[in-house]
Amino acid sequence: MSKKFVYMFKEGHGKGKELLGGKGANLAEMVSLGLPIPDGFTVTTEACTQYYADGKKINSEIEKEIFANVAKLEKEMGKKFGDPVDPLLVSVRSGSRASMPGMMDTILNLGLNDVSVEGLAAKSGNPRFAYDSYRRFIQMYSDVVMEVGKAYFEELIDEMKHKKGIKEDLELTTEDLKALCLQFKAEYKKKIGKEFPQDPKEQLLGATAAVFRSWMNERAEIYRRMHSIPYSWGTAVNIQAMVFGNKGDTSGTGVAFSRNPATGEKMLYGEYLMNAQGEDVVAGIRTPLPISKLQEQNPKIYKEFTDIVARLEAHYKDMQDMEFTIEEGKLYMLQTRNGKRTAAAALKIAIDLVSEKLRTEQEAILMIEPKLLDGLLHPQFDAKALKAAKPIAKGLAASPGAAAGKVVFTADRAVELHAKGEKDLILVRLETSPEDIAGMDVALGILTARGGMTSHAAVVARGMGTCCVAGCGELVLNEKAGTATIAGKTYKEGDLISLNGSTGEIYDGLIPRVEAALTGDFGTVMAWADKYRALKIRTNADSYKDTKKAIEFGAEGIGLCRTEHMFFDFEGEKRTIVIREMIVAKNKEDREKALAKLLPMQRKDFVEIYKALDGMPATIRFLDPPLHEFVPHDEAGRQELAKHCGISVEEVKQVIDSLHEFNPMMGHRGCRLAITYPEICEMQTRAVIEAAIEVNKTAKKPVVPEIMIPLVGEVKEYLFLKDVVVKTADAIIKESGAKLKYLVGTMIEIPRACLTADTIAQHAEFFSFGTNDLTQMTFGFSRDDAAKFLEHYYDTKIYENDPFGTIDFTGVGELMKMAAIKGKASRKDLKLGICGEHGGDPASVEFCHDIGLEYVSCSPFRVPIARLAAAQANIKNPRK
Amino acid sequence: MSKKFVYMFKEGHGKGKELLGGKGANLAEMVSLGLPIPDGFTVTTEACTQYYADGKKINSEIEKEIFANVAKLEKEMGKKFGDPVDPLLVSVRSGSRASMPGMMDTILNLGLNDVSVEGLAAKSGNPRFAYDSYRRFIQMYSDVVMEVGKAYFEELIDEMKHKKGIKEDLELTTEDLKALCLQFKAEYKKKIGKEFPQDPKEQLLGATAAVFRSWMNERAEIYRRMHSIPYSWGTAVNIQAMVFGNKGDTSGTGVAFSRNPATGEKMLYGEYLMNAQGEDVVAGIRTPLPISKLQEQNPKIYKEFTDIVARLEAHYKDMQDMEFTIEEGKLYMLQTRNGKRTAAAALKIAIDLVSEKLRTEQEAILMIEPKLLDGLLHPQFDAKALKAAKPIAKGLAASPGAAAGKVVFTADRAVELHAKGEKDLILVRLETSPEDIAGMDVALGILTARGGMTSHAAVVARGMGTCCVAGCGELVLNEKAGTATIAGKTYKEGDLISLNGSTGEIYDGLIPRVEAALTGDFGTVMAWADKYRALKIRTNADSYKDTKKAIEFGAEGIGLCRTEHMFFDFEGEKRTIVIREMIVAKNKEDREKALAKLLPMQRKDFVEIYKALDGMPATIRFLDPPLHEFVPHDEAGRQELAKHCGISVEEVKQVIDSLHEFNPMMGHRGCRLAITYPEICEMQTRAVIEAAIEVNKTAKKPVVPEIMIPLVGEVKEYLFLKDVVVKTADAIIKESGAKLKYLVGTMIEIPRACLTADTIAQHAEFFSFGTNDLTQMTFGFSRDDAAKFLEHYYDTKIYENDPFGTIDFTGVGELMKMAAIKGKASRKDLKLGICGEHGGDPASVEFCHDIGLEYVSCSPFRVPIARLAAAQANIKNPRK
Repeated sequence: MSKKFVYMFKEGHGKGKELLGGKGANLAEMVSLGLPIPDGFTVTTEACTQYYADGKKINSEIEKEIFANVAKLEKEMGKKFGDPVDPLLVSVRSGSRASMPGMMDTILNLGLNDVSVEGLAAKSGNPRFAYDSYRRFIQMYSDVVMEVGKAYFEELIDEMKHKKGIKEDLELTTEDLKALCLQFKAEYKKKIGKEFPQDPKEQLLGATAAVFRSWMNERAEIYRRMHSIPYSWGTAVNIQAMVFGNKGDTSGTGVAFSRNPATGEKMLYGEYLMNAQGEDVVAGIRTPLPISKLQEQNPKIYKEFTDIVARLEAHYKDMQDMEFTIEEGKLYMLQTRNGKRTAAAALKIAIDLVSEKLRTEQEAILMIEPKLLDGLLHPQFDAKALKAAKPIAKGLAASPGAAAGKVVFTADRAVELHAKGEKDLILVRLETSPEDIAGMDVALGILTARGGMTSHAAVVARGMGTCCVAGCGELVLNEKAGTATIAGKTYKEGDLISLNGSTGEIYDGLIPRVEAALTGDFGTVMAWADKYRALKIRTNADSYKDTKKAIEFGAEGIGLCRTEHMFFDFEGEKRTIVIREMIVAKNKEDREKALAKLLPMQRKDFVEIYKALDGMPATIRFLDPPLHEFVPHDEAGRQELAKHCGISVEEVKQVIDSLHEFNPMMGHRGCRLAITYPEICEMQTRAVIEAAIEVNKTAKKPVVPEIMIPLVGEVKEYLFLKDVVVKTADAIIKESGAKLKYLVGTMIEIPRACLTADTIAQHAEFFSFGTNDLTQMTFGFSRDDAAKFLEHYYDTKIYENDPFGTIDFTGVGELMKMAAIKGKASRKDLKLGICGEHGGDPASVEFCHDIGLEYVSCSPFRVPIARLAAAQANIKNPRK
Repeated sequence: MSKKFVYMFKEGHGKGKELLGGKGANLAEMVSLGLPIPDGFTVTTEACTQYYADGKKINSEIEKEIFANVAKLEKEMGKKFGDPVDPLLVSVRSGSRASMPGMMDTILNLGLNDVSVEGLAAKSGNPRFAYDSYRRFIQMYSDVVMEVGKAYFEELIDEMKHKKGIKEDLELTTEDLKALCLQFKAEYKKKIGKEFPQDPKEQLLGATAAVFRSWMNERAEIYRRMHSIPYSWGTAVNIQAMVFGNKGDTSGTGVAFSRNPATGEKMLYGEYLMNAQGEDVVAGIRTPLPISKLQEQNPKIYKEFTDIVARLEAHYKDMQDMEFTIEEGKLYMLQTRNGKRTAAAALKIAIDLVSEKLRTEQEAILMIEPKLLDGLLHPQFDAKALKAAKPIAKGLAASPGAAAGKVVFTADRAVELHAKGEKDLILVRLETSPEDIAGMDVALGILTARGGMTSHAAVVARGMGTCCVAGCGELVLNEKAGTATIAGKTYKEGDLISLNGSTGEIYDGLIPRVEAALTGDFGTVMAWADKYRALKIRTNADSYKDTKKAIEFGAEGIGLCRTEHMFFDFEGEKRTIVIREMIVAKNKEDREKALAKLLPMQRKDFVEIYKALDGMPATIRFLDPPLHEFVPHDEAGRQELAKHCGISVEEVKQVIDSLHEFNPMMGHRGCRLAITYPEICEMQTRAVIEAAIEVNKTAKKPVVPEIMIPLVGEVKEYLFLKDVVVKTADAIIKESGAKLKYLVGTMIEIPRACLTADTIAQHAEFFSFGTNDLTQMTFGFSRDDAAKFLEHYYDTKIYENDPFGTIDFTGVGELMKMAAIKGKASRKDLKLGICGEHGGDPASVEFCHDIGLEYVSCSPFRVPIARLAAAQANIKNPRK
């Protein structure tokens, strides 16, 4: 009952962003630093939770607290809510614990009504400003609070401009704006059935509730899921006295970063617009000036601002993303937060902060979001091809990277095409808005006609590590025709363009891309990560090429070599037909004949992989998928197979039919296959061992193959196959006269394997957690089928994260812990690793560190991410 | 190294059947009781294990020990192995810890060779006997040790008889037998490529190894699996001086039970044959005399024998199954063991032993194999129909019960037809042999032309609780034609007959059968069981009829009412079309319309079930299977549905296609369905609650429905649906003005539910373990698909039991224990039960008792089994 739901900014210092949200906490900090902040208060995240608990109602207790603080604010500001002479106006903004830019709603100029607008006009001596503010407020309130949409309001403005024969909003007169206010209120009444609310208190409660509600809007949900932000956190609401950047030419508003968010360079970086409100800058409706211009225009304000920036950086020890407003020549800070940055910038800033002695190496490592590295590791344009290409247009280099692909004009269409398998899509928009988030997520690159470096498109693309060129003036969109013109050439959906997000240049057609070159900063941070991590990082690779790539990225061995990939046609070798020949074989003898043909192919693959590894360990998983994954599903394939094997098509069909399974995921696969056909296990052992003997003849450091039996649920399964492996391997080794060490272990991917890990570990030299299957079995749903209901599960908040993305610590993680503890109890030197896709997920890497695994294994491109995540894990929870 | 692998019988007292096998231990006991036993020794089960560990070799240590004991035996008997004048002859018999009658191999007369046979002839003064023994030995040795099969030897005997124009083996002369010995040895040499071994030591080692090997023969494996006997136990080998029942008319051999194994009546019961060896009686080749005849033929021996029987019963406190041999007027006991018995006999014997003060009630309960009760609970012939029917023939009433069905002439064919869905099969054989075991297992009844009450067919059928009529002289089989003639009428496969296993009568055609009447003994034992058990027994039932039946059998409520069964056409009500209408509904409104039609049907079902229960609890599981299980799979069905719903067939097809799942077991089912369509959950809640309110209006004891949410893996799934249930239920209750208590709980069948049981139990009032799904998920295989590889798993000893038959204590059981402990920790009064099929398996019932469940639930026919098993569990491990 005595819970405090509202804090004045000056009370908030040290209360933390869990309670006040990021924005609220930072405002409180800035107030405590004595910076010029318009006063205000924060309604806590707990109030938001309470709002939902009360069935989406602001209860009377919270309401009372809000108005008690309104009274304090009125006293501070010397203005009164709804005052006809000098009204208090406030902004109402969301602010959750984690930054979710543009995901939730904001309302400005709240407190205006038909009476107070006149007061504001008189007091400011600027009636045009007052009515512009009022029409903006009506528009935002209608859209955000009453959810009538803003399209019709925009149409009314366009109509007015058309009628008057003008182009810019700024050309509208006071009378025009007064007329618009009347039209807007009429539209409101038409849509809502009531007059536009004149009581500022009603306005405030409505706006506060709307911000709470926006915590659950669709784009916020998508963003939360993308960034693993729990639904339960809720958002705070910040209610702050308005200051106006649109009070004429001595007023203005801007956004700035204390360092360059694209490169990390230590320089003030940002944009501002005079005679404008913040939304004009952020939404990219007018193209703003670079912040450096402010030094020329107003050196005093500029000096004051740079001093504040320095104090904030020293305070937060991180690059700051700030909003400010100049009202009639006075500077106000509206917000500061740690700035989003590109991967390259994150590395540079971290390194610079260490050089500047603001951060230790460990702290610097913790500052870098591992997933960001992804952007650095992806292809860049081929330098030669790029040199030869001529850009057709140029925009702002909003988010670095290279993208080349098919043009698509709406976010929905991008999502649709992506679902159909189109991977290289360039989303081309007039400007992006938060509704476009899902489409931006699937796009390879983003191109906009409007907006600057801090526009929605630019901020979100950098956060995603997606290449983006913004504000390209030569881009004209024709939404009706579904085409765009770039520098005179018309593009329709599916036409090809290339974007260079690092220069802002746009090219016609596809420019070939090459692998990323890893810069010096990357090397420095990776070297730090390697210094501080305890986990080893291996890779999932089953070819020379992937192995090489992974080693470049710092892999220390192979954690999962899937041998079944080697059974498909590869580099001109007809392999599929041979595995099919084995499948239709009528007896062991015929099966062995087919396997004998596969042996040299698979042996060759291992030779190449071992050579790439140069003595590093390789865990080789034996055949896992059910045989029906290898059979032909078309008539031509069946006929070819019949001909190849000299049997009838009918016989081929019979074999294929006999392989049908009701639940293939839980069928005849993994070790179950090799138990039925031990000759497969023999052949694979032979390939692994013979290749190792061959490579070790000339290798400096001998390879020690690790043979991994998949899908073990009962120790006797493992023993049966271990026996086959050891007999086969030892016979080959003996015959060769060579010396060869090899290990035999198992994948832990069946719940029963975790439960009986003590027994299995008595015989297995290593465990590797196969968390994909383990997740499926533990949850009892198949990944393929769960898609149908998981969407609905997210909607209903039953799950908030994809358990296939991050390990489910509560369930699957519990089984892993159990297996690790039981396994180690039986065999002290049991090697423990993970080779499921979770091995490249930072949160999962941290979990693996915490439960004492020796290594994680992930796809080559994820290796650097895993290295960094492993270092962070060990810094947070050092391994003894 | 100092492990002792061989024990003389006189050393074996108290060493136990784990080491000596059942037969060996009993021989040692009998020796210690001073009974007349031919001396010998036992090679232990540990030697068998060692034999397999050594790669199927008898190692030198064991060999040395065997021959050291041969030397002792020679000394005891005053005869020498291979002695040309008075050779020591031995039998070599298997003997595992559990009785496995006829499953493994035996060799008699070992020690005979071309020289010693002459000694035996001279010493016994009976050359015919000597050569008959020799030819039997060659035959058995060739078959069992060298595995050449016995068919050709039988042909040679038939040829000889044909040539001589005689019918009976006994008519063969010494010269005939000598000639046969030569022919047999020639055949041996032809098949094996070496002479028949003349060295008795070589013979002995060969025979011992053969017995060890027989532990792994196919029929032994099937038997072990049927009776859950672990492979690891191994078999002992008993080597015993031969005594001969075929030394002429003062010799004989017999088998007897101390009480009637079919009825339990306290009377000596058995058969014997003069001038015969044991195999003649057991194999049913000659039809023996009832044991009572022995009293007339040889009252002294009879008296001696009955005294021994009395001593053995007093010693073992159980009905004994004994083998004896009379050699030239002297009685020898060859074996005793607790006798196999029918369910009726088991009950009567247990009750009688208590009356005789040999056993306490608790001990008596422990003597009854719960699975046996099954036989008592199954149908008997309709008394009226039976009275009207005239038997066409009569055999021995070998195993009680009533069977009526289609005739089949081979075990393989029975298995084949059974797999195709034929349930009522009568296996008709000349005589059965251990190779027929699989066919006998699937047959409803067994009829043989030869063999007595202790023949293979009779013993095995009683063990299985299968109706059997044996030794029907009027049955003539024509194997070539694939027909049989019974009392002149010819029957071919598929023709109908009926068997009365309690009278031995055989009928033409089908006699209708009625439910079993539960006899007084049954009631007595059930009353004892109820007195001593702690577990409650519920039933799985979803109709009035099943519920009634289960209550007759002693069920104390419903543990699982599967509501989906109610969605199929039932008692003339068209229900399927309505659930299909719901499935193709395009929106919630249409779905609710269809559900509204289902509501009164489901409500009516619940009303009837509640009435049957009369206040006992009912756990009602909400819709579980995926929706595609309800859709029509044929064109006609699709057309009907399209017409019914007024949509196109194409639309119906689209819906059906959209329901396709890759792994339906792990798909959109259980609570996942109701989360997508909460209106289903609402309708079901409504039906459950409205029915309860209606019934409680007039009920003496109000019903308390227990609503069970299936397939929960995450507490939020449960909470989502609990909320729907509670809101719906409370509104109905409030509106009705009635008072109604109801519980909401969940099925625990997903591994993750076990791992998070503490959280779930905070909100669930009960858990019911769904061990079918839990087993599938924990092992990671689907029951439907696993059949493909499980057979091979049994062959390779990876699994020895069907985890769907008995709970896998190590894996699945561990999860259950965890869930029980975690659940109780959160909610002290959490109700715990099991409703998987394991609830009717005695070993699983014991496990459920041990981990502290409150009840088990099983199919109606299993309720008495569960009651008995629950009592046994509580006697072994009393609950505090």
